[in-house]
Amino acid sequence: MPGTPEAGSVGKVHTQTVRLYTAESPLQLEQGGSLGPVDVAYETYGTLTPAADNAVFVCHALTGDAHAAGWHDGATRPGWWDNLIGPGKPLDTDRFLVISANLIGGCQGSTGPSSPNPETGSAFGLDFPVLMMRDLVEVHRALVKHLGISRLLAVIGGSLGGMQVLQWGLDHPEEVANAVVIAASSRLTAQNIAFSAVARRAIMTDPNFAAGDYAAAGVNPDIGLSIARMMAHITYLSEDALTEKFGRQVDPNRRQPGFGIDFAVESYLAHQGQVFLERFDALSYLYLTRVMDYFDPFADPKALDAVRFSPVNWLVLSFASDWRFGTDHSRRIVRTLERAGQPVSFREIPSTYGHDSFLLAIEPYHETLGAFLDRALAGVTA
Amino acid sequence: MPGTPEAGSVGKVHTQTVRLYTAESPLQLEQGGSLGPVDVAYETYGTLTPAADNAVFVCHALTGDAHAAGWHDGATRPGWWDNLIGPGKPLDTDRFLVISANLIGGCQGSTGPSSPNPETGSAFGLDFPVLMMRDLVEVHRALVKHLGISRLLAVIGGSLGGMQVLQWGLDHPEEVANAVVIAASSRLTAQNIAFSAVARRAIMTDPNFAAGDYAAAGVNPDIGLSIARMMAHITYLSEDALTEKFGRQVDPNRRQPGFGIDFAVESYLAHQGQVFLERFDALSYLYLTRVMDYFDPFADPKALDAVRFSPVNWLVLSFASDWRFGTDHSRRIVRTLERAGQPVSFREIPSTYGHDSFLLAIEPYHETLGAFLDRALAGVTA
Repeated sequence: MPGTPEAGSVGKVHTQTVRLYTAESPLQLEQGGSLGPVDVAYETYGTLTPAADNAVFVCHALTGDAHAAGWHDGATRPGWWDNLIGPGKPLDTDRFLVISANLIGGCQGSTGPSSPNPETGSAFGLDFPVLMMRDLVEVHRALVKHLGISRLLAVIGGSLGGMQVLQWGLDHPEEVANAVVIAASSRLTAQNIAFSAVARRAIMTDPNFAAGDYAAAGVNPDIGLSIARMMAHITYLSEDALTEKFGRQVDPNRRQPGFGIDFAVESYLAHQGQVFLERFDALSYLYLTRVMDYFDPFADPKALDAVRFSPVNWLVLSFASDWRFGTDHSRRIVRTLERAGQPVSFREIPSTYGHDSFLLAIEPYHETLGAFLDRALAGVTA
Repeated sequence: MPGTPEAGSVGKVHTQTVRLYTAESPLQLEQGGSLGPVDVAYETYGTLTPAADNAVFVCHALTGDAHAAGWHDGATRPGWWDNLIGPGKPLDTDRFLVISANLIGGCQGSTGPSSPNPETGSAFGLDFPVLMMRDLVEVHRALVKHLGISRLLAVIGGSLGGMQVLQWGLDHPEEVANAVVIAASSRLTAQNIAFSAVARRAIMTDPNFAAGDYAAAGVNPDIGLSIARMMAHITYLSEDALTEKFGRQVDPNRRQPGFGIDFAVESYLAHQGQVFLERFDALSYLYLTRVMDYFDPFADPKALDAVRFSPVNWLVLSFASDWRFGTDHSRRIVRTLERAGQPVSFREIPSTYGHDSFLLAIEPYHETLGAFLDRALAGVTA
């Protein structure tokens, strides 16, 4: 049954698509080469002020999309950050214009590896260019310009989204007044890379991956993609959260010990793997995890030159039980920014839910975000 | 090139096999039903005293085997616990008779799901009965009796092996003077089960699993089994160990960013997944991980009755960086045994190597084991 927007919701919304680059005027890529046309799917909530000084750009995580808040027609659930975005919420749409866009490389309306390759008419597959974080930022900057905004009041994102915020703020501080980096990292550890490597291998060794041309073959690497998701999902939750939620409960449908779904946690994971197939593309999983693997902005000795000249107000948040990008990752970001003379606020939010905490309505987390954005707005209007 | 035994090695060894149960006199299983014939592969190192009071039984982990020490003909490496077992080593074969046996359900000489089903002549596949920890203990007890030993000086094991030690000591304390439980658990958490569940799913959804009848079909679920191993391997190492070993090093064979082996840690994991195929069976992986999932001895209110009457000397060891079965798991075992009036020594060994530390020659670890076994022997000969 379709859900109903409640008070505090932005209400009915829909995703728009805009062509930001064309074959004639393509996106120039960080690794060389170019890409065009490039379409970007996005949503906005709230109203831009005449001075265009109240825009907050929301950056989604690995498997997110442009639909951050409100309700699509007939949907059974709202956008992925609906608890944060809306009238009276921390991202108050009575005061801010909130922008959310699907990443290039993604699969929810923006150009990605399963989009048609203009040269062949079939999906790009592995002929899609390898992307780097700066490519993702460039496309979002182009969208911001398209919307008539020369400087964002804030960019904010969790996980991959937080990594994108960091790159954006470092490279273009004059276009970003405030930056919120949540549950993110300035560089993945070997363990982080390892989990993504096994996920990618599960996808690529699925016979239905067909060397990336599964769409043309009329198949989909469902098995590999669901294995990848199940494994990743374990790392998004804390051990305590899984214990509290499932412990050692036996699945109610189990008849006797065997090799099916015996424990409740197995049922949960199988479900997560299954529903993921309906909303995510295997190639996008490869491309966007690789963006994270290679992300290492502070390895560039000039990384901090721009912000030294034009500081950004940073807020860095971690969650106590996050073992994917835990507090150590955030502290490294904070220390590096501080050494470059940046104004940085840092807070470790108490939470038992692990990495996925950044999606939840945890009170001290939302309070911190709300207060930071209030100050951001006051700084502009003062 | 074949390796050469060094000083302190037990030298050349070979695996023997004994039929401990027959079709006429089968093993009675914990879940009901029976299994026979049952063959068990084992090795021994050292000499049994005339009083048969110096036998130490070594219990292997999930993917271990009977070959714990010394060298097989033409082998390039010694047994998996060779650093611990040998003349002058903590498990000193000049003083102890050390016994190591492959688990039933395994695939290295003992009867398992890929052994021939006497009813069909083909491999059992998923018709092999689901095993519980007590089944594994029963078979090892039968081997001990076969060897003319009525009471073991000690049983010792890590991970699944440690869990087996716990069950053995609890159920048959009169046959076990000393018990060493290393990097083990008295019950898996939801996260522990989740990792094994995804590994099993990778195996069972591989088209070459063929519903467990892959041997008859002349195929093997290589893809699923290697994915399972790669994922599990991440959990056997600490994040720090992976960082120290690989960090963010790029693989020397990488030409440009892509979706192959770009980082050194990816190469390492791929190698781990590949070599595992040569030594392990997919069905054994299912059966033995399920034994661990269901292991929960303290859930039985009578679990401690036997040891209250006939205490065992327990040594419980954990490793500081083990996040698979960390110190919390060991502490739960220690507290429960202490409440039952058992003499328990506990030590958390400082180590940065994670769960796999139990296989390494870490000095304080080996010293602790050696001292415990020395006291065990002194207790007998006093």
